[in-house]
Amino acid sequence: MSGIRKIVNDPVYGFITISHPLVLWVIDHPYYQRLRRIQQMALAQLVYPGAVHTRLHHSMGAYHLMCNAIAELRLKNVQISPEEEVAAEIAILLHDIGHGPFSHALEQTLIQGVSHETLSLAIMEKMNEEAGGKLSLAIQIFKGSYEKPFLHQLISGQLDVDRMDYLTRDSFYTGVSEGVIGYDRILKMLAVREGELLVEEKAVYSIEKFLVSRRLMYWQVYLHKTVLCVEKMLVKIIQRARMLISAGVSLQAPSPMLDYFLRLEGPFQPDTDLALFCQLDDTDILAAIKCWTQHGDKVLATLCGMIIDRKLLKVKLTSTPVDPDHQRICLEELVRATGLSEEEAGYLVFSGESTNTTYNPRDERIRILFKDGSVKDISSVDNALIQHNLSRPVKKYYFCYLNQERIADWFNHKPI
Amino acid sequence: MSGIRKIVNDPVYGFITISHPLVLWVIDHPYYQRLRRIQQMALAQLVYPGAVHTRLHHSMGAYHLMCNAIAELRLKNVQISPEEEVAAEIAILLHDIGHGPFSHALEQTLIQGVSHETLSLAIMEKMNEEAGGKLSLAIQIFKGSYEKPFLHQLISGQLDVDRMDYLTRDSFYTGVSEGVIGYDRILKMLAVREGELLVEEKAVYSIEKFLVSRRLMYWQVYLHKTVLCVEKMLVKIIQRARMLISAGVSLQAPSPMLDYFLRLEGPFQPDTDLALFCQLDDTDILAAIKCWTQHGDKVLATLCGMIIDRKLLKVKLTSTPVDPDHQRICLEELVRATGLSEEEAGYLVFSGESTNTTYNPRDERIRILFKDGSVKDISSVDNALIQHNLSRPVKKYYFCYLNQERIADWFNHKPI
Amino acid sequence: MSGIRKIVNDPVYGFITISHPLVLWVIDHPYYQRLRRIQQMALAQLVYPGAVHTRLHHSMGAYHLMCNAIAELRLKNVQISPEEEVAAEIAILLHDIGHGPFSHALEQTLIQGVSHETLSLAIMEKMNEEAGGKLSLAIQIFKGSYEKPFLHQLISGQLDVDRMDYLTRDSFYTGVSEGVIGYDRILKMLAVREGELLVEEKAVYSIEKFLVSRRLMYWQVYLHKTVLCVEKMLVKIIQRARMLISAGVSLQAPSPMLDYFLRLEGPFQPDTDLALFCQLDDTDILAAIKCWTQHGDKVLATLCGMIIDRKLLKVKLTSTPVDPDHQRICLEELVRATGLSEEEAGYLVFSGESTNTTYNPRDERIRILFKDGSVKDISSVDNALIQHNLSRPVKKYYFCYLNQERIADWFNHKPI
Amino acid sequence: MSGIRKIVNDPVYGFITISHPLVLWVIDHPYYQRLRRIQQMALAQLVYPGAVHTRLHHSMGAYHLMCNAIAELRLKNVQISPEEEVAAEIAILLHDIGHGPFSHALEQTLIQGVSHETLSLAIMEKMNEEAGGKLSLAIQIFKGSYEKPFLHQLISGQLDVDRMDYLTRDSFYTGVSEGVIGYDRILKMLAVREGELLVEEKAVYSIEKFLVSRRLMYWQVYLHKTVLCVEKMLVKIIQRARMLISAGVSLQAPSPMLDYFLRLEGPFQPDTDLALFCQLDDTDILAAIKCWTQHGDKVLATLCGMIIDRKLLKVKLTSTPVDPDHQRICLEELVRATGLSEEEAGYLVFSGESTNTTYNPRDERIRILFKDGSVKDISSVDNALIQHNLSRPVKKYYFCYLNQERIADWFNHKPI
Repeated sequence: MSGIRKIVNDPVYGFITISHPLVLWVIDHPYYQRLRRIQQMALAQLVYPGAVHTRLHHSMGAYHLMCNAIAELRLKNVQISPEEEVAAEIAILLHDIGHGPFSHALEQTLIQGVSHETLSLAIMEKMNEEAGGKLSLAIQIFKGSYEKPFLHQLISGQLDVDRMDYLTRDSFYTGVSEGVIGYDRILKMLAVREGELLVEEKAVYSIEKFLVSRRLMYWQVYLHKTVLCVEKMLVKIIQRARMLISAGVSLQAPSPMLDYFLRLEGPFQPDTDLALFCQLDDTDILAAIKCWTQHGDKVLATLCGMIIDRKLLKVKLTSTPVDPDHQRICLEELVRATGLSEEEAGYLVFSGESTNTTYNPRDERIRILFKDGSVKDISSVDNALIQHNLSRPVKKYYFCYLNQERIADWFNHKPI
Repeated sequence: MSGIRKIVNDPVYGFITISHPLVLWVIDHPYYQRLRRIQQMALAQLVYPGAVHTRLHHSMGAYHLMCNAIAELRLKNVQISPEEEVAAEIAILLHDIGHGPFSHALEQTLIQGVSHETLSLAIMEKMNEEAGGKLSLAIQIFKGSYEKPFLHQLISGQLDVDRMDYLTRDSFYTGVSEGVIGYDRILKMLAVREGELLVEEKAVYSIEKFLVSRRLMYWQVYLHKTVLCVEKMLVKIIQRARMLISAGVSLQAPSPMLDYFLRLEGPFQPDTDLALFCQLDDTDILAAIKCWTQHGDKVLATLCGMIIDRKLLKVKLTSTPVDPDHQRICLEELVRATGLSEEEAGYLVFSGESTNTTYNPRDERIRILFKDGSVKDISSVDNALIQHNLSRPVKKYYFCYLNQERIADWFNHKPI
Repeated sequence: MSGIRKIVNDPVYGFITISHPLVLWVIDHPYYQRLRRIQQMALAQLVYPGAVHTRLHHSMGAYHLMCNAIAELRLKNVQISPEEEVAAEIAILLHDIGHGPFSHALEQTLIQGVSHETLSLAIMEKMNEEAGGKLSLAIQIFKGSYEKPFLHQLISGQLDVDRMDYLTRDSFYTGVSEGVIGYDRILKMLAVREGELLVEEKAVYSIEKFLVSRRLMYWQVYLHKTVLCVEKMLVKIIQRARMLISAGVSLQAPSPMLDYFLRLEGPFQPDTDLALFCQLDDTDILAAIKCWTQHGDKVLATLCGMIIDRKLLKVKLTSTPVDPDHQRICLEELVRATGLSEEEAGYLVFSGESTNTTYNPRDERIRILFKDGSVKDISSVDNALIQHNLSRPVKKYYFCYLNQERIADWFNHKPI
Repeated sequence: MSGIRKIVNDPVYGFITISHPLVLWVIDHPYYQRLRRIQQMALAQLVYPGAVHTRLHHSMGAYHLMCNAIAELRLKNVQISPEEEVAAEIAILLHDIGHGPFSHALEQTLIQGVSHETLSLAIMEKMNEEAGGKLSLAIQIFKGSYEKPFLHQLISGQLDVDRMDYLTRDSFYTGVSEGVIGYDRILKMLAVREGELLVEEKAVYSIEKFLVSRRLMYWQVYLHKTVLCVEKMLVKIIQRARMLISAGVSLQAPSPMLDYFLRLEGPFQPDTDLALFCQLDDTDILAAIKCWTQHGDKVLATLCGMIIDRKLLKVKLTSTPVDPDHQRICLEELVRATGLSEEEAGYLVFSGESTNTTYNPRDERIRILFKDGSVKDISSVDNALIQHNLSRPVKKYYFCYLNQERIADWFNHKPI
């Protein structure tokens, strides 16, 4: 492995530089290249047409910020060896390697009972075997078991480079310019005390703005009512397909890998299932959805056609729970108008809740290093914007349903 | 159709506004929504990971510039009626509706002998039927048969809003910031004389820069040697699949629409084929490529695997034609090393040429309106940068081949 | 006054268009052109070297946003006549016309007892005479006495275009990118009900971010301890000069206008003083400071030299009041070390306080228009970030002093 | 001199870092701080209101690019010692230290017969004495006498960081976004062979665009007809003031330093004059111009009033020389209308020429390093845009005059 230097154009940061052969090996690995085919924001592009960037691009961006963070910390005399640097860079490159098609939207749905973090770790270990153990330190850092906790905190913590990149990148690609955070300033204000990651006092306002931007991105983008609705529709499609299979209805996904996981009944078996999982990406789901628009099951075909033609369920987002009577009436109307059974109609009229917390001091812990050497949580700083009232999770309730007009479109073959 | 107003976030222009119900009807149409699943720059993302924007997004951007251009021209007392405005907006929205999967890369390969412009027109006419003739004026403008030529020139000419958007957008998403053009300034300098589109004298330097940016984007992005190589590999995949089918080898695309077109032997029949074509998108090709990585034909499986894992053919770009002897030696080495036939090896060792002209005064015609009322072609302006030497097309020659290392990867099952 | 159209380049918004002759007349007026020589952020450029933009540029930017705001409101069927439009545009162009040299930093110091708003109004009335009454409606809107309150609220209110421009522009020129607000989104969300300016519900997060950005700009830029210190030093220079004059010491400002105001003892007399005031700008103060670096009064010469050479007083910013004993000790040390009198030393050792409120619901009133037609103050919205705890003004206390090193520089003629 | 680290916000590059005490000493020096009061683009702000950035900011920007260039070259194994790095950084910081008020506009006019480069060198040598010889290496590099020519070429050559910063910064502040160059890409493509600065082959298109952007900035901004006119008016003001003094007319500049140089008759004497020169800045000229608007000499008062109120001479820019007969007729009309003498009128009606060359291969020499190790001038590269036709300097001829309307304003006391 000799000296290399690759430069990749990035609209967000200008250029990303790769200068270590092990980093390049990771990036060139088919498991990593698979992330090119997984969109970072699933189907949020149905609302924000620019939001089509990939997991590969996000993780390369986070890698770039990690390089910068390490350079800044070294300027402040934090000791980081070349091996630790490469390991931290690889850990962040691979932090999301366990994401499946449409990422969070189908997490726990497609592969039931397994989080993407668990899958990331399993894949990293598989790659480590191939690499003859060269990724062991990266894995330790990823797991948080390495002796310098700040390296793990840079990957997974309240101010990690993962969040900094996804907020910056998602804000950039959606065009929601208000989500922009001052990542460069925060990076310059990082510090390490007793192995823990802190931020300097003068970054307080930047961090306030970081948290408020995150809050804005959640409510305006990630939990945008239509984005939420599309994600729930994706879930319903997978659930319906599974149900049909288990009911013995003839149904096939055009992709054998997807087909396998739809039929998988027991728990995920890394030994056999991981290699197959590593071949799954957004294409498999989209190809299935396109195919199923012609399926004989009216519910499945309707949901799939709605996604493809972007003629979505109506959705309401409220701060109080959905009235069960209202939902029932809606369902019954649908049953009456279409002849679907109640069970079937339940895929087209449903409700649920989503939650977001702006800042939870119990498990988030942004700690501020003051000039006099003292350390405080940001929520205890004088006159702080981020106070205890923000630690309460905010719940919103969604209600998705098929309205009259759509019923006509899908069930009565009226021209559009 | 009542008053509406939709705002769409766009990272390039901030916000795009839709305020006419017919425009909204076009955007909501499944044929238009299909463009969400066709990437503007095909697989250029294998080189520029940010370049994943869609045809839908590009055409909405061009629509936005059309709205601006019309507003500017009206301020200069150019008469444009509300009907003409809506028609021009729809014409630009639909100008690329006939693009198939991976756009230019597979044009004339997937649907042989039919250009995307022909398909665009056919689809527009089909939509016009549905719309009860409301798109007739848009079609006239698109075809260039309407009495105000400048409206057509805004859609398809040297300074049309199509080019302005794709240069701006492609430059934005690739991160090749040097490709940026001053579209807003050029728009402000547009003028109309005797129905023809002109630009005011003081825009000369902006237009020089526009042409130089376009030149840069061609050589640095669109004809980047690796981008070129990937596109040629896509073509080879389709050709190989067709060849296998015609040779009676068992081969199926997971998508019935793609399968249909691979097997289509006679000419494209709009009556029967257009509806199928309108269901094709990048997903169909990608799903097939993923599927065929497991196919028994070594050539097809190799090409497909290379695209999926981004382990591409080597490529050389030169200003002189490829030496046929050198190509022959390469081919023979490959035959020797792999046992492939010469015909088979020809899918993995091949050459060709690509051409670009910076400015061709014969068919491009950017005309400058001087303060004294006279009009000159930009190539005749004093001291112009854009002179006759730039009208000569520049040819580059590519040579793609499988190098030793890759042969080992794909044919001898060595670990990667 | 015939049809005109001028386009001005603006790095912040791209282009600013002037299309009414009365607006052009105002911009061309010498009183308005004077604003070219008054920096928007006084001497904040000693900390933020990019912050050298002028009051003229800011007010043209605010004018641009006003044009946009009016266009948006008209799209929502708010009635605004062409005369009202021009008047509102002129009112915002002239809203800061009464600012003197270094704007806020020397307000009430140079012209004692008169605010810049009072001066703005007086100047507008003077210009109205010249214009034969054509500015009367602009003046009514400026004063808030016109029958459509929202026009005044766009000029002076919590969400006025003045704030939107200065936050955007100051953030742009300082390079404090975190101060960026989503002005374009907020403009698109403005609404008018019963003549009052409101914002639509879906702008809530944008407004939260607007308020947090403003908070950040205050603490990080406007009240940055060094910026504060420089402004107080400017005040001390003017106070010292006045004191010396009244003590009969020979002292002259190189500018006769400045000299006049330094010697002015009674109240400001618009009839005689306004024309002179309209000739004052930053140049007069800077020329005097440069000149006075050579003055015989050690205190004045020191303060002036410190500004010119950017060798400033030390400053501390705390959340508790400065300890008077500590200040006294500092003062006495300075007296001992330099032989200055206590009165003299008081110009070089001093303290004070500055205050900022993030959002005060009593007098700020950002009102949100909900979909159901109801209206609430933003601080009463569910789960709002902007709550009552933010309505309490935050005080910070500054302490400026000459440290040992500087004493050596200025009083003992040591080489720097 | 111990370890330091200062971060300065820059709207163009984000942050500029200062990490060496000698660099900080230079920046803190009063001679360097003087550059805060010299605008980079003189009075171009009368056309581009955003163009108010200072020489200090430009030279800090160029310093930032120098830091980046050195880091890139080191990654390519070019040997640069820490001493050479600091010296090159200081050399670029000080490269413009010899600029007087309004930079190029008054160069050779205010201090006759001395270029700003000569003055820069003299000031650097003076500072070197103060610094006990620590700037000697910086001076060697600046003069081009150091053994590694590429360090000098980075400061003063066709692709130096000076040009890269001023094109980037001037384009940024004027808002002429088309002037933007890909400085980051060019920096990454720099190389050194046998001590000389080269650029890698793949930068060819970026350099083409760099040259075209420079061309655009010249014609659209630096030589914009109104900018040119204002600069010539500044020159006329100084010339008129000198003439009046030598004719014994009572005339004083409010600034004693300016007064000294206006009266200086023999050549510039560094020993006595340099210290005074180092106190001159834009303020001195502006204060004089404001003062002289009241002077008894009608010509001087008119020119000064025109600058202050931005009521400028009319100007025509043509590609053929001004017709002397036409100029004479204009002059005679002015004489007739105002009673001025012909000599006096010559300050208000005058002509001249300005020249710009896009690329001159004889003295500019951008050399391209090809992959095969060969080196060619960019103008010899195949199919290059930059060809010999661009090496011919382009001349434009300006004609400035007082039109009827302005005559009325200034000579007949009509209300404006």
